[in-house]
Amino acid sequence: MTAKTEGMSEEELNARHAEKMKKKKAARDKIMATKTIEKGLIIVNTGKGKGKSTAGFGMVFRSLGHGHKVGVVQFVKGRLDTGERLALERFSDLVTVKRMGEGFTWETQDRQRDIDAARQAWEAAKDMITSGEFRLVLCDELNIVLRYDYLPVEEVADFLKNEKPEDVHVVITGRNAKDELIEVADLVTEMEQVKHPFRSGVKPQEGIEF
Amino acid sequence: MTAKTEGMSEEELNARHAEKMKKKKAARDKIMATKTIEKGLIIVNTGKGKGKSTAGFGMVFRSLGHGHKVGVVQFVKGRLDTGERLALERFSDLVTVKRMGEGFTWETQDRQRDIDAARQAWEAAKDMITSGEFRLVLCDELNIVLRYDYLPVEEVADFLKNEKPEDVHVVITGRNAKDELIEVADLVTEMEQVKHPFRSGVKPQEGIEF
Repeated sequence: MTAKTEGMSEEELNARHAEKMKKKKAARDKIMATKTIEKGLIIVNTGKGKGKSTAGFGMVFRSLGHGHKVGVVQFVKGRLDTGERLALERFSDLVTVKRMGEGFTWETQDRQRDIDAARQAWEAAKDMITSGEFRLVLCDELNIVLRYDYLPVEEVADFLKNEKPEDVHVVITGRNAKDELIEVADLVTEMEQVKHPFRSGVKPQEGIEF
Repeated sequence: MTAKTEGMSEEELNARHAEKMKKKKAARDKIMATKTIEKGLIIVNTGKGKGKSTAGFGMVFRSLGHGHKVGVVQFVKGRLDTGERLALERFSDLVTVKRMGEGFTWETQDRQRDIDAARQAWEAAKDMITSGEFRLVLCDELNIVLRYDYLPVEEVADFLKNEKPEDVHVVITGRNAKDELIEVADLVTEMEQVKHPFRSGVKPQEGIEF
């Protein structure tokens, strides 16, 4: 309760609220009426915080809920993706998942193999995006392989800008999104870490991290 | 490629990379060995950017993938949640969804009804959290009703701190998370908006916003 509303009766508060919300709705409706464009978006989830892939997969499930066909390419195959994979099995009529990556760079310890895997994953992603089959394609952890220069970011940005079909949404996740990618994106969110339980010795847990 | 690696042959680059990653893996394994605690977390997704509810639902699907029972309470019933709702129907053996809210404040324009709805939703959420039935409970948009003081934040923080069973994860979403809630949370992520397509006249689209 603000200073302005202090001392008001419940009735006064309610009446004031109704008036305020009526105005808010009018303003909002006016704004929303100007939003008329429909188009496939390039969406980037980046930052050091949690939720980049989680929100990416959330969008995949949202799209699957509508009965859209969805493609998923994993650029970095983690051990920690079992939950998503198992949940996607219930949508095997709608979703195609390609687990192309070779695990984190510090697991493979093999640069050339990582580069080859990144290239293969990117070719698979391009095929999905241009196939006409999918409404949404998730390129999970693509930012990681771009960051290590395993794929030229110019090539990726150029493809998204010039060759992505108009009606396909592409979602790209991973920390350290490069500027060239942010430049061509329509929707970019930075997940910032405010508090993280690993710091107090909590381990990765089923259903939370994987 | 950094200045340091310029002029190196591919072989030299690969050898250098392998050495570096070996060290990284050793350091990482050492850190991860100290993470031994398992416990139900209080997770807050806040900020003005996209992905708060999307990541919350992503975590719900991840948990469902593992076969966990999950509860969902929607504190603000939007029109824009069809995708999640339809996708959750494929998990009706595991998930319980309570759509308690009455729509956005500017839609209802009725403060007392909003307050009653918030109270009912919170009672439902508490029942789910203490029932022993659910591994994870999503309180979607709880921050919104706390922000409007429709529920006392002290009551919510106190419950989470003292009455939440040790093994239950609670995920809370919505912008403007209050300090009292952040205080009791284990994992807090702020979704920051870097770029948003509404600004260029793009309307909310199926599979993306709802």
